[in-house]
Amino acid sequence: MASSRIGLWLIGARGGVASTVVTGLVALRQRLIPPIGLTTELPDFKNLDMPDWSDFVVGGHEIRNVRLFDEAMDLATRSRAIDVELLRRVEPDLNAIDRRIRPGTLLGVGPTIAGLASDGIGVPRNETPREAVARIQKDLREFAAAENLEHTIVVNVASTEPPVADAAGLPTEWEPFQRLLDKSPCPLPASSLYAVAALDLGCSYVNFTPSLGSTPAAFDELARARRSRHMGCDGKTGETLMKSVLAPMFAHRHLEVMSWVGHNIFGNLDGRVLDDPANKRAKVASKDHLLGEILGYRPQTHVSIEHIASLGDWKTAWDHIHFRGFLGTPMVLQFIWQGCDSLLAAPLVLDLARLTDAARRRGETGPMTFLAGFFKSPRGVAEQGFVRQFEMLETWLGNPSKPNPGERN
Amino acid sequence: MASSRIGLWLIGARGGVASTVVTGLVALRQRLIPPIGLTTELPDFKNLDMPDWSDFVVGGHEIRNVRLFDEAMDLATRSRAIDVELLRRVEPDLNAIDRRIRPGTLLGVGPTIAGLASDGIGVPRNETPREAVARIQKDLREFAAAENLEHTIVVNVASTEPPVADAAGLPTEWEPFQRLLDKSPCPLPASSLYAVAALDLGCSYVNFTPSLGSTPAAFDELARARRSRHMGCDGKTGETLMKSVLAPMFAHRHLEVMSWVGHNIFGNLDGRVLDDPANKRAKVASKDHLLGEILGYRPQTHVSIEHIASLGDWKTAWDHIHFRGFLGTPMVLQFIWQGCDSLLAAPLVLDLARLTDAARRRGETGPMTFLAGFFKSPRGVAEQGFVRQFEMLETWLGNPSKPNPGERN
Amino acid sequence: MASSRIGLWLIGARGGVASTVVTGLVALRQRLIPPIGLTTELPDFKNLDMPDWSDFVVGGHEIRNVRLFDEAMDLATRSRAIDVELLRRVEPDLNAIDRRIRPGTLLGVGPTIAGLASDGIGVPRNETPREAVARIQKDLREFAAAENLEHTIVVNVASTEPPVADAAGLPTEWEPFQRLLDKSPCPLPASSLYAVAALDLGCSYVNFTPSLGSTPAAFDELARARRSRHMGCDGKTGETLMKSVLAPMFAHRHLEVMSWVGHNIFGNLDGRVLDDPANKRAKVASKDHLLGEILGYRPQTHVSIEHIASLGDWKTAWDHIHFRGFLGTPMVLQFIWQGCDSLLAAPLVLDLARLTDAARRRGETGPMTFLAGFFKSPRGVAEQGFVRQFEMLETWLGNPSKPNPGERN
Amino acid sequence: MASSRIGLWLIGARGGVASTVVTGLVALRQRLIPPIGLTTELPDFKNLDMPDWSDFVVGGHEIRNVRLFDEAMDLATRSRAIDVELLRRVEPDLNAIDRRIRPGTLLGVGPTIAGLASDGIGVPRNETPREAVARIQKDLREFAAAENLEHTIVVNVASTEPPVADAAGLPTEWEPFQRLLDKSPCPLPASSLYAVAALDLGCSYVNFTPSLGSTPAAFDELARARRSRHMGCDGKTGETLMKSVLAPMFAHRHLEVMSWVGHNIFGNLDGRVLDDPANKRAKVASKDHLLGEILGYRPQTHVSIEHIASLGDWKTAWDHIHFRGFLGTPMVLQFIWQGCDSLLAAPLVLDLARLTDAARRRGETGPMTFLAGFFKSPRGVAEQGFVRQFEMLETWLGNPSKPNPGERN
Repeated sequence: MASSRIGLWLIGARGGVASTVVTGLVALRQRLIPPIGLTTELPDFKNLDMPDWSDFVVGGHEIRNVRLFDEAMDLATRSRAIDVELLRRVEPDLNAIDRRIRPGTLLGVGPTIAGLASDGIGVPRNETPREAVARIQKDLREFAAAENLEHTIVVNVASTEPPVADAAGLPTEWEPFQRLLDKSPCPLPASSLYAVAALDLGCSYVNFTPSLGSTPAAFDELARARRSRHMGCDGKTGETLMKSVLAPMFAHRHLEVMSWVGHNIFGNLDGRVLDDPANKRAKVASKDHLLGEILGYRPQTHVSIEHIASLGDWKTAWDHIHFRGFLGTPMVLQFIWQGCDSLLAAPLVLDLARLTDAARRRGETGPMTFLAGFFKSPRGVAEQGFVRQFEMLETWLGNPSKPNPGERN
Repeated sequence: MASSRIGLWLIGARGGVASTVVTGLVALRQRLIPPIGLTTELPDFKNLDMPDWSDFVVGGHEIRNVRLFDEAMDLATRSRAIDVELLRRVEPDLNAIDRRIRPGTLLGVGPTIAGLASDGIGVPRNETPREAVARIQKDLREFAAAENLEHTIVVNVASTEPPVADAAGLPTEWEPFQRLLDKSPCPLPASSLYAVAALDLGCSYVNFTPSLGSTPAAFDELARARRSRHMGCDGKTGETLMKSVLAPMFAHRHLEVMSWVGHNIFGNLDGRVLDDPANKRAKVASKDHLLGEILGYRPQTHVSIEHIASLGDWKTAWDHIHFRGFLGTPMVLQFIWQGCDSLLAAPLVLDLARLTDAARRRGETGPMTFLAGFFKSPRGVAEQGFVRQFEMLETWLGNPSKPNPGERN
Repeated sequence: MASSRIGLWLIGARGGVASTVVTGLVALRQRLIPPIGLTTELPDFKNLDMPDWSDFVVGGHEIRNVRLFDEAMDLATRSRAIDVELLRRVEPDLNAIDRRIRPGTLLGVGPTIAGLASDGIGVPRNETPREAVARIQKDLREFAAAENLEHTIVVNVASTEPPVADAAGLPTEWEPFQRLLDKSPCPLPASSLYAVAALDLGCSYVNFTPSLGSTPAAFDELARARRSRHMGCDGKTGETLMKSVLAPMFAHRHLEVMSWVGHNIFGNLDGRVLDDPANKRAKVASKDHLLGEILGYRPQTHVSIEHIASLGDWKTAWDHIHFRGFLGTPMVLQFIWQGCDSLLAAPLVLDLARLTDAARRRGETGPMTFLAGFFKSPRGVAEQGFVRQFEMLETWLGNPSKPNPGERN
Repeated sequence: MASSRIGLWLIGARGGVASTVVTGLVALRQRLIPPIGLTTELPDFKNLDMPDWSDFVVGGHEIRNVRLFDEAMDLATRSRAIDVELLRRVEPDLNAIDRRIRPGTLLGVGPTIAGLASDGIGVPRNETPREAVARIQKDLREFAAAENLEHTIVVNVASTEPPVADAAGLPTEWEPFQRLLDKSPCPLPASSLYAVAALDLGCSYVNFTPSLGSTPAAFDELARARRSRHMGCDGKTGETLMKSVLAPMFAHRHLEVMSWVGHNIFGNLDGRVLDDPANKRAKVASKDHLLGEILGYRPQTHVSIEHIASLGDWKTAWDHIHFRGFLGTPMVLQFIWQGCDSLLAAPLVLDLARLTDAARRRGETGPMTFLAGFFKSPRGVAEQGFVRQFEMLETWLGNPSKPNPGERN
């Protein structure tokens, strides 16, 4: 495995997911934890040319005035999600990363996220979209120069922005699209400005949130032109992962899903942002569409997300699936998922960073559809079933795994 | 689709599964129900050369003195699993099938099942294994002649027999194996005697239970020699289906399953037979092995099956999956499955009958590994993940479905 | 038990609850069902002077053009909640009751309920509140005369009305209160007009819904002046019953409830009405307040009610209770309640009718606080714990049950 | 509140419950934790003459060679049940208590518990029951003298012993009963020998386990003669607490419980001991009887307890309650309880110690039936409903709480 320095630049760099990403990355580097939760540590990935954990250098943008270590400690004490002793050992590295974090932009993030911004850290209040892109690019360039980086991967792990009105109507070619930066008001939210800045500079961009990011079609042209790559959106971590695993069962067994109700409760900052109905709308849409795509028809669905403070990072989902079986008889499957939101997301971010750099080493540019299985709404991919998405990844690996009809021992 | 008369011969022909199979078959023929729950009614199977529902003629063996209609009515009134009005409409056809049911054999079924046998219907108490096989073959021959059948498929849907000691040590070639029929005591249970009788006659044999049936390797030789075919064992209907759907998720996401506990409660006759620890042992083993095969390691597992009379046919399973995520943090997934046992099994039996005849039309003989996805313990198949097993079926169909990386609309 | 004819007049007389009430009443009379679900059939009530099931004559008001039997049959076939054979046997009696049902009033019911009204059955569209009260009283008088009734009990089982603005500010004395009938717009909804009509006539009034009904304090004066009696509101049937049973456990064990989330899904007409946010507001408030009253502090709570059509009458509730135990450690209790909404409500309505008549026989007038345990928001009662509410009933019975510290055998 | 030194002597003094008891007691004394989970800290108990937390001195008997602090740390790190930082602060006090712990006895504990004993700490292998009693009394006497104690309360929190054959046939008077100590083999298990030693010495004895302890009737005579007091058995902490809370609901609503299935999984040492079917039998019986006593009839019940190592101290119970409602329609209530076994038990032990001393201050001797609500099988008490048991405690307090029929504000 060739050694090289790779930048991982996180948008929302001191949030719960980012804190967990850096805690885990440092712990992996120091061999304090087993590589649980990381797909790229499975045997299938052994021969892939990809970075080692120690190759990554982390920086990012943030709008709140907090410390990475404090955020991680909150996960440890309030949510009992991280081992306190582990955290003490990675504290110096977290503090070093903290110093590489720069003020983000508030353009188009909506009032709820904007309300979280701290004045003290220099988040600009009056920049234009063009200025914001230029400032972000300056930060990325200085990061690459200071750290002697071969490649920087920008990953958006910030809170969910409100949906952009008529996103489907945005120009599909780059030239008219980039002119939106000068339009007033500019329809592009922060997540897309980061995407413009990154891709235009030849950095990779991954959108781990349901925000607009690089979703518009025009970004493919930009990515290919700058020989960079991108993918999204919305990391598939819990309830929606379960949907993409269970729905194919109902489809293949020809059981008719009459209704699928999913209630999600959790208490972290992302949850607080989603208490704003505008922001929630983007999230719910992203959690809801795939059932119809897998089943081939649209059962009645209901997705709720509620911020319950006492739960901290523990995302609990109850799903009630009412289906009709043989002779038309109704039956019920229910599941209860109790997982730590940030701890489910963080290893995916690390896997995505590794795989994105592997794509670069292979010379691939444009959209990275082989990463579909990591996302609730995989950009440009119709397949929503999780196992088949994983097969897409294996095929890309050059290691297409087939069903094993051989003898059992 | 070529029209032809196909025999479906059920072992345990008046049990809950059989009653539901015939109720459903008659209802399908009369177009009283939609084809929900039937895999072979999915669009993918449209071009497969297989029998129509009206091509099937049903008969079978049974040891209890009951009526098919009464058994089905018990599912309707006590379990509220079948619509009473529907049942009234199929009653005459059920009665006609009843008249084609012959007394089964009690050899090797164990004391609990033997205790269910009724003297009044002429179940022999003193036949030898050879005599039993001969009698069964006579019944099958008369059935085929009387009904003018092109092919008969014997499906074992009887209650679970106790496991056979040292089943792995049985002869793997047919000649020494068939000599076991003369051994005293003969190690072969009823389910295997039916398999011998069926395959030797050129009928197909499908083992929908965890009983020994045609599991011994020697049956492959017999099946090929007689140009017949067979498969098993143990229909994958509920909790184990869920395991084969969920375990790949944990494997592909590299989440470590620490323990997987499954508690099953139900109140039908099969449940009553499983209250005998000997019979239960066979079932639990069949429900338990696949996790290790999918995950690649063996988490602590526990499977319980309890007969709770009030539940009738409603099989309720609670599974508690304790897994370790990123940073070693323990998380929990629980599911509750509330399904009608017989109504989940019956459409699989119908699908298996159709697909077995389709294999015959294609000239295939021997084990039918493409049917792996229908079984908890698919004979001769290492793949235990449900979606990949379904892909095996699609590949056999000549219609290999691939992940769809195309544009979403 | 003295024989006498007692009228049971249902508001919403062809809804799901009413259909079940009459089905059950007729079935009890014909001894087709055991008295399960009826508190007044417990041994403690053996000596209470109350009506026999055969003493009741049923009539009511309704706004929809449907048949009682069809509504009950929908519960039988779509929801599998009632036995079809049972229903066939009570059909003639249901049809007889149908003929005693008169058109109700739409005043103040809100647009969603008003939208359910059928023109064909003569529901007046332009009456004034005074006229509505007079018409209702005429119906009640004719019912009593035609059926030779000693006492009529009016029970509101209609769908939930939107809350009345500033209900707390309504006059507390009868004289100014009754003048509201002439005010335009009149703030009193239909449920209160029925209450006025009934109590003024000396009939009893029971409000089984969260609608305003006889909640205003002024109704006590009216009830006492006319020597009638009343109680409400909102029958405690499922999730809230569970809250009033579980919350005392947390209180007595000094376990701190941090959050209590309850999600309710069901698919009957009441559920459809509650899809209107205005109507839902009244219901949620009624389901939510009691936790704080039992615990002595207010944990974060969330109550949702969603109309999921496939569930029919099956109300499913998932409650997630996050509590803090010793050393401050968070723990979780979850429950899942799967009950038939109408079948849980109906026996309470029958019990309430019996107990209301028993109160009359004792000469009691005014509010019937001893019935607190039947209601989510028992009017004028602070006690919200279910067992203690039951003790209030036992005390009223003259049969105060005490904890039994005697020897166990 | 009079200050005085009170001894708390724990049998199983370094087990999970004991470690949590002492951790909590020290933390309460140092005001490091709020008094959550402690009934005696409710306002109702404000005026009760009972010891302060700082009045207690802890010692005990143990058979394993472990350290209190290590056991508590295992709860902190493996089970994430105790805060690590909290534990560090109480470590010196835990070590001091460790030094007061003496070797226990293995007589009658059964092979599984005996297998846990460490040779290094001097647990006698060949003592007679009389010798064991004498040795235990010597330890208690030295403890009282060294610590200047006014009263010592012995609480059995050791693992569950196998049931004693024909326990009901033991002599009911003290004289013949005490002669059993000389019988060979002696039918009395360790838990009863500790009870003999304690009560004979005038100490109080509380049996927090389902072991025999002071259950035999003869202990009442001994306790009264020595002016001491006792109670048991089996602390009501989780699933059974829920049963005693929920069963009254079904009883008062006249809903027929058809079956009640409870599956318990947990991974601590107590769970390991219960994997021995003999020990488990005692526990299951204690968890199962109360349903019949509350309901007045015996539904089908099933209780399982399985040791699932990964769960550590997290006891998870799934209960499935199948009940029949109005018109005979079956409905389902399920609950899932996720609690820390030791943290649920420990505050009850502290409450029991306080209340036992309060009984002494009042001059009460013999069985303490007012403590019924703390036990699964309250000795000599027929009442099994939790709220009514709490009322017994309130009545004893001189503070009988009545349902509050007053106006709600």
